[in-house]
Amino acid sequence: MRKVADLNLVDSDKDSFSLKSFLPILEWLPKYRSDDFVQDLIAGLIVSVVYVPQVMAYAMLAGLPPYIGLYASLLPLIIYAIFGTSRTLSVGPVAIVSLLTFSSASAFAEPGSNEFISIAITLALLTGIIQILMGLLRLGFLTNFLSHPVLVGFTASAGLIIAFSQIKHLFGVKLPETKYPYELIFQTILHIPNSNLATTAIGALSILILLYSQIYGKKTLVKLGLSDFSAEAFSKLGPLIAVLTTTLLVWGIELDKKWGVKVIGEIPAGLPPLTIPEIDLAKATSLIMAATVISLVGFMESNAIATALANRRRQKIDPNQELIALGAANLGVSFTSGYPVAGGLARTVVNFNAGAKTPLSSIITFMSVAIVLLFFTPLFYYLPQATLASIVVVAVAKLFDLKAIKRIWEYSKADGTSILATLFGVLIFDVEIGILIGLATSILLFLYRTSKPHVAIVGRVGNTEQFRNVLRHRVKTCPETLAIRIDESLYFANTKELERCIMSKVADNPEIRNVVLICSAVNFIDASALETLEKIIDELRSAGINFYLSEVKGPVMDRLEKIGFVERFGREKIFLSTHQAMEFLGCK
Amino acid sequence: MRKVADLNLVDSDKDSFSLKSFLPILEWLPKYRSDDFVQDLIAGLIVSVVYVPQVMAYAMLAGLPPYIGLYASLLPLIIYAIFGTSRTLSVGPVAIVSLLTFSSASAFAEPGSNEFISIAITLALLTGIIQILMGLLRLGFLTNFLSHPVLVGFTASAGLIIAFSQIKHLFGVKLPETKYPYELIFQTILHIPNSNLATTAIGALSILILLYSQIYGKKTLVKLGLSDFSAEAFSKLGPLIAVLTTTLLVWGIELDKKWGVKVIGEIPAGLPPLTIPEIDLAKATSLIMAATVISLVGFMESNAIATALANRRRQKIDPNQELIALGAANLGVSFTSGYPVAGGLARTVVNFNAGAKTPLSSIITFMSVAIVLLFFTPLFYYLPQATLASIVVVAVAKLFDLKAIKRIWEYSKADGTSILATLFGVLIFDVEIGILIGLATSILLFLYRTSKPHVAIVGRVGNTEQFRNVLRHRVKTCPETLAIRIDESLYFANTKELERCIMSKVADNPEIRNVVLICSAVNFIDASALETLEKIIDELRSAGINFYLSEVKGPVMDRLEKIGFVERFGREKIFLSTHQAMEFLGCK
Repeated sequence: MRKVADLNLVDSDKDSFSLKSFLPILEWLPKYRSDDFVQDLIAGLIVSVVYVPQVMAYAMLAGLPPYIGLYASLLPLIIYAIFGTSRTLSVGPVAIVSLLTFSSASAFAEPGSNEFISIAITLALLTGIIQILMGLLRLGFLTNFLSHPVLVGFTASAGLIIAFSQIKHLFGVKLPETKYPYELIFQTILHIPNSNLATTAIGALSILILLYSQIYGKKTLVKLGLSDFSAEAFSKLGPLIAVLTTTLLVWGIELDKKWGVKVIGEIPAGLPPLTIPEIDLAKATSLIMAATVISLVGFMESNAIATALANRRRQKIDPNQELIALGAANLGVSFTSGYPVAGGLARTVVNFNAGAKTPLSSIITFMSVAIVLLFFTPLFYYLPQATLASIVVVAVAKLFDLKAIKRIWEYSKADGTSILATLFGVLIFDVEIGILIGLATSILLFLYRTSKPHVAIVGRVGNTEQFRNVLRHRVKTCPETLAIRIDESLYFANTKELERCIMSKVADNPEIRNVVLICSAVNFIDASALETLEKIIDELRSAGINFYLSEVKGPVMDRLEKIGFVERFGREKIFLSTHQAMEFLGCK
Repeated sequence: MRKVADLNLVDSDKDSFSLKSFLPILEWLPKYRSDDFVQDLIAGLIVSVVYVPQVMAYAMLAGLPPYIGLYASLLPLIIYAIFGTSRTLSVGPVAIVSLLTFSSASAFAEPGSNEFISIAITLALLTGIIQILMGLLRLGFLTNFLSHPVLVGFTASAGLIIAFSQIKHLFGVKLPETKYPYELIFQTILHIPNSNLATTAIGALSILILLYSQIYGKKTLVKLGLSDFSAEAFSKLGPLIAVLTTTLLVWGIELDKKWGVKVIGEIPAGLPPLTIPEIDLAKATSLIMAATVISLVGFMESNAIATALANRRRQKIDPNQELIALGAANLGVSFTSGYPVAGGLARTVVNFNAGAKTPLSSIITFMSVAIVLLFFTPLFYYLPQATLASIVVVAVAKLFDLKAIKRIWEYSKADGTSILATLFGVLIFDVEIGILIGLATSILLFLYRTSKPHVAIVGRVGNTEQFRNVLRHRVKTCPETLAIRIDESLYFANTKELERCIMSKVADNPEIRNVVLICSAVNFIDASALETLEKIIDELRSAGINFYLSEVKGPVMDRLEKIGFVERFGREKIFLSTHQAMEFLGCK
C-alpha cells in the first residue's frame, strides 16, 4: 500500500494549451513506427471500398447529386487527421447529418437544384464556424444535457424517416411533396402500388447481396478457406459487389432506357474545385438554428464513437479539440463544394477492426477516393439509384432499436416517456422541434423526480448505532422525537415538499417535541432550501418544537458555516451522527 | 420507546375527496365557538380599516378607477371563507397582481378606459378558470419550480416598478407612454422637475403620516396609556389618518380647484352589479399567458403566507384546494366588475395579529366594505390620488430587499445569478419574460451544478473501516485499486463526466487493475447513466480492468435488479460496504 502522492490520481486532466494539444498530428506523426504502416494501409484501403458507394448514397439521402458525397469526403479525412484526437475516427458524410441537411435545406430550395447545393455548402460553413467557436469556448459539455433517451428516440425516428425517404428510390415511384415526416410515411405507403418493377427488382437484389454479405459473408469466406482476418475484410465488400452487379445488369440489358430504371448518370470528372463559398447573409441567418442542431448532433455522434474506441485502447479524447477538428473539417468541406460531415459509426468501426493504428489510414482512404474521382467516375454512369437507396436502408435499419426502447421503458417510465416524446416530436413536427421537445421532457421529468425525493422516517435497529427506514426494517422510535432522512440534495424544486413533509408529520403527531433531519444524502443546499430550512426552524420554534441536523457533509457544512447559519442555528444542534443526536435527545 | 405502529407517522397525507375537503367551511362553521366571535369581530373591523384605502390604491396601481378596488374586495372575502383551507388568509386586491394586471391590460387598451376595465374583468375570469383547473388537476406542485432566487428577483423588480409607477401621482407630473419598465424609470426621473408643488406636499405629508404610524405609532400609543393590544390595533390606522387628513385639507382649502391636486372624484354608490362578464374570444386567447402568470404568482404569494401562518398554529394548508378557493374568488370577482385578486401579506398579518380565529373575521370585513360602498362613497370625493400613491409606495418599499439579495449572492453565486437574471429580465423586458428568464437560469444552473458532481478518490483511514477523500484526509491507497466516490445521483447530465473521470484516472495510472465505484450518495440512476455504466464496464473489461460497486442504496438496487443488471453484472461484484470490497480486492 502506497501513499497517494505516488499515484497520478489528482489533477490529471488540467487543460494544457500546448501546440500539440491543438495539433494532435504533432503528437503521433513524429513517433510514427514503420511497423504500423502495413496495418494503416490495409485499413485505409478497406475503408475506401466501403466508403465510396456509401458517401454517394448519403449525398442522395441529403437531396444532393451523388458526386457531392465524394467531394464532401475528401478534405475531412486529411483535416481530421491533423486536428482530431481520435486515432481511428473516420470523418465524412453520415446518415443522420445527411437527413438533417435534407430537412433544413429543402425548406429553402428544390432538392438537387443548384440553389439547394449552395444552401448545403452554407450549412457546412456555418456548422464549421459554430463547432470551432464551441470548441474554443470549451462548450463541449453542453451536449451532456442531451439524455440517452432523447438520443434513442431521435435516432429511432431518424432511422424511420431515412428508410422511408429511400423507399421511393427502391420502388421507383414519384411522391408528392410532403412537409411533415409523418406525411412522408403515409404517402410512401400509399404510393407503393405504383412501383416500377425493374427498379424494385434491382433494389431487392441489392438488399439481398448486402444482407447476405453482412450476415453470412464472413462465415462463407472462412469455409472457402480464407483466414479469419481476410474473411472479415472481404465480408465488408458487400456494397461494392452490389454496386458492380447492379451496374453491370443495368448496362448489359439497358434497364435504364427500356425499363425506366433511374441511374446516377454523368459525374463530373476530377477533384472538386477550391471555391470560396458564396454566402447569402439573409439565408445564413435563417439557417443558424439548423446548423446548430447539425453541429451538436454531428459532434455527439462522433464523440460517442471516438470515446468508446479510445477507451478500449486506454487513449484519451478531448471533446473540445474534437469540436475544433470537426469544425475545421466542415469549413474545409464548404470550400470544396461539399455538405456537412461528422464521424461515421460504420466506417470507423471498419477502420478500427481492420487494424488502423493512426490517422494515416484516413490519409490512405483520402488518396483512394481522390483516385476514384480522377479516373473512375465514368464507371458509375449506370449505377442505379435503387442500389444506393438499398445501401442507405440496410445501414440505417438498425437505428430503429425497438429492443432498446422497450428495455428503457421497463427500467424507468420517466425515461421511456422522454423517448416517446422525442420520437413522436420528430415524426410529427421535425427533427429540431422533436429534439427540443425531448430535451424539455427529460429535464422536466428529472426536476419532477428530484422534487419528490424519497423520504424515510427512521428508527434505531435493535441496540445498534444504525438508523433505518421504519417501513423497511423492524426498528424502535420515540414518540416525542421525529428522525427523518431525505434522500436528495435540497434545492428549490423540493423545498416545499420538505416543509410539507415535516410539518404534516408534526401536525399529525402532537406529542412530537424534537425533529432530527438526517442529511447523509444531501449533496448541496441551495439558497431556496436554506430559506425554507430557516422558515421551518422558525415555525417549529413557534410551535414549541426543537430542530436538529445530523450527518451534514463537509462541503455543505463549509457553506452553512460561511453564511453564518451554523452560528445562528447553534453549532450544538448539528450532530456528526444520528446516533449522537438521538442519544442527546434521550431516545436510546 | 414505542413501536412505530402506535405513531401516526405513515401515510398521514393521503388525499381524501370528502365534501369537507372541498368545502372547508363545513369543517369550521358547525364547530364554531361563541368565545371566538369577539376576536373575529375585532380582527374583521381592524382589517377593513386597513383594507378600504389599500384596495383603492391598488386599483389605481392596476390602472383602474379606485372604486374597482372596492368591488374586487367584496366577493373574494366570502368565497375564500367558504372554500379556503387557511383560517386567517385575507383575499383581495394585492400589489403585485395589480402590477401584473396593469402591465398585461395596458398592452390592449388605455388605462382607466372602459375597455381597460373589461380586459381586467376578462383577466380575472381567465385567472379563475386556470386556478380552478390547476387545483382540480392537482398541479399545485408546479409552483415548486419557481425558485426562491427567482421570487426574490421578481419581487425586487416588481417593487421598483410599482414604486416608480406611483411617483407621477405623488409629484403630480404627466409622463409620456412607455413600453418597457426601464423606460418608465428613466422617464420618471427625467420628469420629476416638472412636479406640481401642492400635490408633492400632499404626497409628502401622507408618507410622513404612514411612516410615523408604522415606526413610532405603537410606541407613542403605549406611552399615552393604551394597552399593548389596543396600541398595536390603532397603529394600523395610519392609512385611515392619512386619508382623513389629506381629504380634509383638499376639501378645506380647495387644493383640487386652485392648485391642480388630482382627487378621486365621484364613486358610483351602491354594491357592484352582478353581471355576466362579456368575453372577446380573440382577446381572451392573447390574455391566456398573462392570466397564467397571474394565476401562478397570485397563488404562490397566497400559499406562502397561508402556509407560514398555519404552521405556527399546527394547522394544515392543502395547496390544491387553495388553488380552487382562489380560482373561485377570481371567478366571483369577474361577475362583480372587479379585477384579479390573491391573498395579501399585509392584511393577512394584520388579521392574524388582531387575533382572528376563523374565516368569520373575513365575513365581518366583507360587511364593513359593503357598508362603505352603500353609504360612505361620497366621503372619498376629495381624497387625493397622491395619498393613495403614498399608501402603495410605503407598502411596496420593503419588496426591494437588497439585504436578501446580497445574502443569497454571498451564499451561492449560482443562486445570485438567478436573482440578477430575473431582476434585469423584468426591468428590461417585462414581468412574464423576466420570470421565464429567471426560471430557465435557475434550472440550467441546477443542471450545470449536478452535471459536475463532487468526486472523491478515497483511501482507508488508518486501520479503520472508514474511507475518506485522499485530498482531505491522511489515508492509505493501493496502486492497483481505484476507489472513487461520486456525490450525486447518476443521470444524463453527469454520465459523461462520470465516464471521463473514471477513464482518465485509468489512462493516467497504468497500474490500476480494479475500480470500485462507491454509490453512497447516488439516490437514483437513470437510463442514460445505466447505459454509460454498462459502457464503462465493457470498456474497462476490454482494457483488462475489473469494476465493482459498493454501498448501492435499496431503491436503486431494486431497479437494477428488476432490469437484470445485477444478474448480468454479477451479484458478487456489488458490495454492501466499501470496506468489504477493499478486503476482497486485497487492499487492506
